Order: sequence, then structure tokens, then C-alpha cells
Amino acid sequence: MPERDIQFLCDLAAQLRVDSIRCSTAAGSGHPTSSMSAADLMTVLFARHLKYDFDQPDAPLNDHLIFSKGHASPLLYSLYKAAGAISDDELLTFRKRGSRMEGHPTPRLPWVDVATGSLGQGLPVGVGVALAGRLERLPYRVWVLCGDSELAEGSIWEAVEHAGQEGLANVTLIVDVNRLGQRGPTRHGWDTGAYARRFGAFGWHTIEIDGHDPGEIDFAYSDAGNTRRRPTVILARTRKGEGVNEVENREGKHGKPVKDAERAISELGGPRDVTVTVARPGDGRGPRSFEGGSLKLPEFELGGQAATRSAYGEALTAVGAAMGQVVALDGEVADSTKAEEFAKAFPERFFECYIAEQQMVAAAMGLQTRGWAPFAATFAAFLTRAHDFIRMAGVSGSDIRLVGSHAGVAIGEDGPSQMGLEDLAMMRAVYGSTVLYPCDANQTAALVAELASAKGVCYLRTTRGDTPVIYPPGENFAIGGSRVLRRSPEDRATIVAAGVTVHEALAAADRLADEGVAVGVIDLYSVKPVDEAALREAAATTGTLVTVEDHRPEGGLGDAVQEAVSDLGPRVVRLAVRNLPGSAEPAEQLADAGIDRDAIVAVVKEL
Amino acid sequence: MPERDIQFLCDLAAQLRVDSIRCSTAAGSGHPTSSMSAADLMTVLFARHLKYDFDQPDAPLNDHLIFSKGHASPLLYSLYKAAGAISDDELLTFRKRGSRMEGHPTPRLPWVDVATGSLGQGLPVGVGVALAGRLERLPYRVWVLCGDSELAEGSIWEAVEHAGQEGLANVTLIVDVNRLGQRGPTRHGWDTGAYARRFGAFGWHTIEIDGHDPGEIDFAYSDAGNTRRRPTVILARTRKGEGVNEVENREGKHGKPVKDAERAISELGGPRDVTVTVARPGDGRGPRSFEGGSLKLPEFELGGQAATRSAYGEALTAVGAAMGQVVALDGEVADSTKAEEFAKAFPERFFECYIAEQQMVAAAMGLQTRGWAPFAATFAAFLTRAHDFIRMAGVSGSDIRLVGSHAGVAIGEDGPSQMGLEDLAMMRAVYGSTVLYPCDANQTAALVAELASAKGVCYLRTTRGDTPVIYPPGENFAIGGSRVLRRSPEDRATIVAAGVTVHEALAAADRLADEGVAVGVIDLYSVKPVDEAALREAAATTGTLVTVEDHRPEGGLGDAVQEAVSDLGPRVVRLAVRNLPGSAEPAEQLADAGIDRDAIVAVVKEL
Repeated sequence: MPERDIQFLCDLAAQLRVDSIRCSTAAGSGHPTSSMSAADLMTVLFARHLKYDFDQPDAPLNDHLIFSKGHASPLLYSLYKAAGAISDDELLTFRKRGSRMEGHPTPRLPWVDVATGSLGQGLPVGVGVALAGRLERLPYRVWVLCGDSELAEGSIWEAVEHAGQEGLANVTLIVDVNRLGQRGPTRHGWDTGAYARRFGAFGWHTIEIDGHDPGEIDFAYSDAGNTRRRPTVILARTRKGEGVNEVENREGKHGKPVKDAERAISELGGPRDVTVTVARPGDGRGPRSFEGGSLKLPEFELGGQAATRSAYGEALTAVGAAMGQVVALDGEVADSTKAEEFAKAFPERFFECYIAEQQMVAAAMGLQTRGWAPFAATFAAFLTRAHDFIRMAGVSGSDIRLVGSHAGVAIGEDGPSQMGLEDLAMMRAVYGSTVLYPCDANQTAALVAELASAKGVCYLRTTRGDTPVIYPPGENFAIGGSRVLRRSPEDRATIVAAGVTVHEALAAADRLADEGVAVGVIDLYSVKPVDEAALREAAATTGTLVTVEDHRPEGGLGDAVQEAVSDLGPRVVRLAVRNLPGSAEPAEQLADAGIDRDAIVAVVKEL
Repeated sequence: MPERDIQFLCDLAAQLRVDSIRCSTAAGSGHPTSSMSAADLMTVLFARHLKYDFDQPDAPLNDHLIFSKGHASPLLYSLYKAAGAISDDELLTFRKRGSRMEGHPTPRLPWVDVATGSLGQGLPVGVGVALAGRLERLPYRVWVLCGDSELAEGSIWEAVEHAGQEGLANVTLIVDVNRLGQRGPTRHGWDTGAYARRFGAFGWHTIEIDGHDPGEIDFAYSDAGNTRRRPTVILARTRKGEGVNEVENREGKHGKPVKDAERAISELGGPRDVTVTVARPGDGRGPRSFEGGSLKLPEFELGGQAATRSAYGEALTAVGAAMGQVVALDGEVADSTKAEEFAKAFPERFFECYIAEQQMVAAAMGLQTRGWAPFAATFAAFLTRAHDFIRMAGVSGSDIRLVGSHAGVAIGEDGPSQMGLEDLAMMRAVYGSTVLYPCDANQTAALVAELASAKGVCYLRTTRGDTPVIYPPGENFAIGGSRVLRRSPEDRATIVAAGVTVHEALAAADRLADEGVAVGVIDLYSVKPVDEAALREAAATTGTLVTVEDHRPEGGLGDAVQEAVSDLGPRVVRLAVRNLPGSAEPAEQLADAGIDRDAIVAVVKEL
């Protein structure tokens, strides 16, 4: 590299360090030292390798840069400034109320694909973006900047395995090995060989460099670009706080402004006004897409029996035929979730994620950044593995659809490890989420179609066993709706149920009717948002609601119902799973948990 | 090995296969084929290597055997039968209502340390048991049986890294590489070399064998036993359904009884009556333990300011001095959670888990199986990473204490990725859990002392910033209690708060009092179980409860309060975090979320 270029890169890197100090000092908090260690790495990337059009963040050929170490946001924003995307004034609003310059980057900034800050998530999501690139046959590259500390997260190794086995050469992981975590030294310090052995064993191309040497960095990026059929990891030895004696390579300097900012800036040669021109990706063919067609949902015969999980598989396949942007992912249980139907019909658009639920959700998040509409399925119980990713998907505003099968004690003999009993609580608490729990196959099919174009983090809960088909094919079910299945002026109470318990409620209502006790029944298939109007009407009319759910009493249907009606002051009695189930047949499980027809009849009689 | 011994091992293995078929056929469900692949591996273990006294499951010198592939429960129970621990009659109650022979093993059986069935958890927990062994200076060994499919779980690699770096030679992982997952072939099939490269890179001793050859298996176990300073993984090539033509090495045979059981049993040589004598560990010195002393909790001056997270650190150290069985774990943020105080005082009893929250919780689960009383801490937000482990800890009846710091929007500038806003919902829905959220430092200290001897999965939520000290040192706070902080006969409403919002509620009550409006205030520091009596009294007296929480509206304080009082029909108004926070100062965040003193005053006036 000519000396002139090296001088420019050093100047730019110094400016990034200065700006990282300036903005965190102005904020009174932030992570300048974690930014300074990676400044040279990002300088060379922006000046010589990244292809990105800041004016068109959605341009298909743009590269993707994910700051997995989201706390290095001062560096990212300083890069945006140097690239002309933001002003110095905006940079200095860092961490202030209302600013886009948040403590950790979020998609409030148009150049940020997903929110980071929970470590170990950037690579898994980046693998999803890379899968999209391959599906689209686009040559963009995915650059992920990680810290060394976060390599301890299991989610990283799920992603390393996924990318390695898929041979995703469009992924380049840059690890800023600055040796110091938040609390002190990392496990492996500057032993980049330890990391190289691990990545190498998973099939990655590995490069170990001095992360402050522009020439080595430049060579590594070129090497990564020239590597075929394997992802590349660049393990860069760096010093945290590089360039400023007060903080350089010292413990206890994580996540706080430098004390003497003026002196630090002067040590770095003072403020500069360097700008960097990031190369635009140029024009090229657009992304490959898949044809759609008209939607022909499966139809299940009224009065028959079918499992809602089977309806999911069939409906997903129908939606996949109608909408080319629909893709499906599964956690090695597609024969159980029934996503296998889709996999057979559209193998290119199906992603087997094996038993790695974090990676599955992350891949879905990555795919949706490129406009794909992912459905990701596993057992409801095992979605808890991906809770932190789901939470961050909410923060990111990701449009993803998660499907949890084998909900509740109704699965029967397999026992509590396989029962989703906490999933409604988990999913309801996610920002902006939608939570659906259908009770029959036609309803499931209709809701799958609704979900295909729904926004935010959406959840569909399905049941293992067959349930009666009580709705005719073709009936529409809106998100936020409900169905009143029994109602009469004589109702003494209204039973509110969803999923399997709808059928228990209907059976109980019939039995009570035989005994001269009228009760209403509401199918609350939309658990979030709930149909407040219907619930409030029932509460006002009968004065007593009995909620019945195949879920723990906390955070599920009962809580949703209660919040909707609380100011009307009805009596709300909750039936939910309060025991620790063992093995038993489905009907026995419902009885043991006190959520079956007998339990409903008994509680209504008591009232 | 003498021919006689080999014959015995083959006979025993055949019986285990026969019994796995018999019990799953009797149940009409279960996983015989996944049991049959590992039968030879377990035969050699029980007959020649395991040291275990079935009459004294808690004997300190017993080895520990964890079936990470919990679905191979037919094999485990068949082993128990062969070892004389259970009868054939009990074996045949497999998966029946009320039986201890559950679909997946749980500690209802005295020989099972923790419940398994959610894959990828056995090794992480086993690492915790091994850490206990090292702490206790006991020579017991930890044997973990995994499937190959579950090696895709990131939690496995967190454990592999942890055990490798700690050099836990007392861990032997046996991987039953039967090539077939639930849905079909695994990622690496029978390529045990692919796994060996990965484990080797993480510092493990690796052995690749034919998993149906008793001699090779025996040699591998001896080799593992003779290996120093490194854990060992035995990668055993096996065939799923080995021994029965109908199912052997065939796809689509997962998780179901064999069709023609009679023929299969005959193929295996028919039923046998082989018994195996498992060697007892013998006597030896007992576990090392640590001295306790009298409890001297830290004292914080009434009217001063202190962060509850700091109180946690100090109180934990005090409890550690008083109780030798207390141990602490942290996810590389001990300077933030303040567990570092304990780490400095009791370095032997502190376990740095780096940024691997699943492994941290699993290690805590493992440690408590040996009677240690673990406290494990990280940011509340990042405990969501370990949700599935926490759920299974509930199923296991594990006595663990989790501490989530940096709860809520009150952390301020760092933004939503670092804010625990879903943790109360997650923790409340766990079976048998306790959820505490103190508002001041003395209360925190008292609750830490309570937790040290509490049962089940316990959660303590702490706050980043300083809060006023409102309780005197030495005051007792029971789990399940609350404190009425303001009450008068004129109260028009009662504000129910916990943690930071208690101080907002008090400020609001004072301001309202100045304006002539009396309101009560309850500090509901025990979110589960809640103090129903106090809440019901307030509901009955004032008729209106205002809940205020630094948490999402779903699954937290508001839901807990509402359930406790619903039959009294009071008006319950909820203030909770409904927005998507950005960066801002703590007070600004509380205001933007509508949970500060102004918001409380406004809502009370509206009522």
C-alpha cells in the first residue's frame, strides 16, 4: 500500500478514536475504549472494502455491516460521520434523550439491520443475512464485528457451525481481540491461536493479524474476499483504548468516558476533519425472487378431527405457493412441527437449523432484513432457548413469525420437559408482539395466512393431538379477534378459552346446559392483542369469567383477560396448570392439571 | 477381556434392548431406538466403570451419570432394573400416570440429579457437578451420555469451553453418534472426526470408537479415567435401533415403539434375567467443606442512598462468611452485579462463567445437586439467555438463586438491549419459583439472607442506580411479605409498587397529600408469592389499586396483584413500560415510560 494511503488510514483511525472520545465524554457514558481497539479494523473496511450506499440503505447490492459488539457504538457513529451520513452535531447527541445515537445501535438508524448490545447475536443474525444473499444470488458480503468476550456465548458457536457447514463464503467475521472484557481479562487473552483452532475445526478459514496494522488488515480483507466455499474469521490482536495512555490496555477502563478527554484527544493528534468515501456497490441484477400465485388454503371438514400443527404445515405450504417471499426454518423437528410439508414443496426456501434454536431465530431475523417473510418452528418449550433473541427481535422491529408446537400438558406422556407451559408469558411480554393460539385446523390455516403479512414478532401456538374441527373452511379470523361460541341471556358465567381448552369449555357448557345451567364460551384465539370489546361485553353481561388455559397461571390467557376487563370489576376465576406434570395420557394430564371439562363444570357449579 | 466377560456384556446389552422395547411397547410410546444405540455403551459403564451405591444415592463418593439424551429413558430404566434398583413391574409402568418412570427422567427418581429432555443440557449441568467435585476434593466422576444431534446446541459448546479451560478431567462425555436425529440424518452423520476436531480444539481428550464393541468401549473408559488435566469425549459410532432389523439404522423410526415387538425381542434372543452389580464407591474421606460463622449483614444508613446491586454484593459476602455452602457464579459482569465482592473474599467459592449465561445457570444446577447453595448473577436482561435452563431447573426442583441486575428502564442511557423488562414474566411462570424485587439496600440484604436457605428457583431483581434507604438495618423481610408504607382511613387509592417505583410512589403520595388527596402505598417486594392479605385489605378498603412497575405490562407486578384481588372486584389501573425506550437519563426514562411520580399523580387525579 502506498505510504499516502497508509497515512490517510492512520489519520482516519485517529479521528474515529477522537470522535469516540468526544461523543462519550459529551454523553458522560459509553464505551470509548472498546471503540478505540477496533478503529483501525473499521477504517480499512470503510476506506477500501465495504460496498455501501448510505443514501440507499435498502439497495439490494449493499454489503451488510453488523456491530455484534454493539457497545462500540461510538465507533460506528464516528464512522457514519466520516462517511458523511450524519453530522458532527448529531454525533454529539450520543445517548441523549430522543437521539438516534443510542447507547447501542438500533434500526432507528436506517443503516442498522438489527439492534445489538446483547452480545453473541451479531454473528448468528449475520449468518441469516448471508443465507438471504445466497438465496437471492446476490454478491453482497456480510461483515460482522465481534468482541473476543462474546465468543463465550453458545449462540456464536451455533452460528459458526451453521456458516461453516453451509460454506457461507460471503460471511467475514472480524474479531477485535482486545484481551479485556468488562470485568477483566478474557479466557484466552491474546491467544488468537486458541480461537483459530476452534474456528478452523468448524471449517472456517482463519487469519490471525495485528489489528492495528493497516497493511495486515487490508490483506486479510482481500484474502477473505478471495476465499471460496468457506466463511472467514479475522482474529485481530488489538489493544483496548489504543492510542491513549490513560486507558490503553488497562483493566477497569470498560464502559466509561476517558477521564482527561482533552489530553487524550491531544495525544491522538487533535480533532481532524477527515472524510471517507465508501464505495457504492454499483448496479447489477436484482435479487432472485420466487413467483407467487393465488392462495388456496387447506380445508378441513367441519366435524372432523385434525391437529393444528398439521394445519400449520399445510397452510404454510399454501402460503408459500401464494407468496414467493415466504421462507421457513425449523429446529430439526419438522416432522413434528409439520414444517416438513413446506420443506418438501419448496426446498430452496426451507432452512434446516438443526437443534439450535437461537440460530434459528437469528437466521429468521437476518432473512427478514432482506424482505423475506420467515416462519420458524420448533416445540413451544424449546423456543425458550431463544428468548434473548426474541426479545431483541422486538427491539429491532423484526417481522418474524415463530411457531411453537406441542403446547401444554395436552402432549401427554412425554412429560414436562417437552411441554410448552411458559411460552405465552414469554411471548406476550415481548415488545410489539402478537400471540395467537388456535383451537381448530381451519382457524389455524386462516391465521397462518394472516401472519404471512403481519408485522413485528408474531407467535403461533399449536397443539400436538387432533382436535375437533369446529369452524368451516374459509372463515376469516382477524388478529385481535375472538369468537363467541355459546351465548344466551341466561348465562351465569362466560368461559374464556383458547386452543385445546376451547373443546373442554364447549363440552363443559353442554353438560352444564343439560343440568340447566347456561354459560357462555369465548374462543380467545388472539391472546395478544385480545378482543377487549368481546371480553368486556361478556364481563358486563355475566359478571363472571372463567379462564381456562393449558399454560402456567402466570403471564398467559388469564392475565390477558383480566387486564382487559379489570375496570369493570367482574369476578375472574382462573384455571391453569399449577401442578408439576409427570407422564400420563393427554386427557389424564388435562384432568390432573384441573383444566378439563370436569374441572370447568366443578368450578362453575361452585360459583 | 476374557470371552466370558464379553459374553456377559453382550447378554446384558441384549436385555437392555429387549427391556427398552418391552416398556415402550407397553406404554405405546417412547424412544426404544435411541435407547438401543447406546445399550452397549451403558452396559460396559455399569458393569465395569461406574461407582455408585443405589441404596445411598446421596453418598458423596458416588459417580454421577446424566442422561443428556433424556429420551433414552427406556435404556436408563432398564439399567436400573438390571442393577436391582427397580422391579420389572415398575419398569413396565413406563409413561403411565403416576409412575416414576416418566417419558424423560426427573429427580422423582432418587438416582437422577436433574431432569433432562431438553437437549443440550446434560453436559452443562455435568460440568457444574464436576466443579463441585473439584471444590469438594472428591474423586467421583461425572459421566454424561449425549446424542449427536444435541451437539448443535450452543449450550454444549459453552460447557465444552468451560470444562476444557478448567481442565475438568473428572468429566467424561459419551456421545452416542447414531447418525440419525428425530427428523433424519444429523449434520455430520458418522463423521466422528468432525466432532473430534471440534472437541480437540477446545482442549479435550478425544477418543473415537465403535460404540458396539465392548472391548473398545472398555478401553475408552479406562483411557478417560487415566487422562489428567483434560476432560474426555468418547465419540462412539453406533446404529440407531441396533439389533433389530425393522428399525436398525433406518430413518423415520425415532420416538415410537417398534411395530413388531415380539419378533424384535426374538431377534434379540428373547427376554433374559441378567443382573449387573454396580461397584460401590467405597469409603473415603468426606467432602471438603467451608466453615461458617455468625451472620453480620451490611447496614445502610436510613435516609442515605445506595444501589440494591451493591447491597447484593455486600450481603452475599456476609452470607458467604456465615454459610460455608454458599457459592457464587457470574457471567463476566461481576463488577456490575457486584458479585465481585464475594469473589474477592471467597475466590475458591466463586465461579467465573464468562459471557455464557446458559452455562452459568447449568453450573449452578450442578453445584446444588451436591448441596451447595449457589447464587448466579448477570444483567436481568441476559438471564433470558438461560430461560430453558431455568424452566428445567423448576422441573428438576433445583434450589438455585438467580440475581438479575440492571432491571428496567431505570438503567438510563444504555438503552433497551441492556434493560431487563421481561424478567418478571419469565421468572414468575417458572414452576415453584420465588420472585423478589427490593427497593432499598437494607431490604436487599435481608432478602439475600432469606434466599440463602430458600427452596426452588429463586430470583432477586436489583437496580443499577442508587435509591433512598427507607428501611432501618436489621429489619426482617419474609418471602411472601410486603410493607404498607402509607395508609390512612381517607385513602382514595392504594399504589402498589416494587423496586425503583416504590420511591416514585412515595413521592407521588406526598405530592398528592399536599394537594389534599390521600393515597396508600404498598411495597410489594415479594412479587411471587404475593402478600394476598395485604393486597386484599387494600383493595377492600380503597377499592382502587394502581400498580406501577419498571417492566412490561405483561406477566409482572400488575398481573400478580390483579390475580390476588380479582374476586373482590377492585379497580386496578396499571402503569408499566409500554414504549420502546431509547437512550435517556434514568429519570427521563421513567417519565417517558409513564411510571414516574408525575405519571402516578396524574393517574390518581384522573380516577
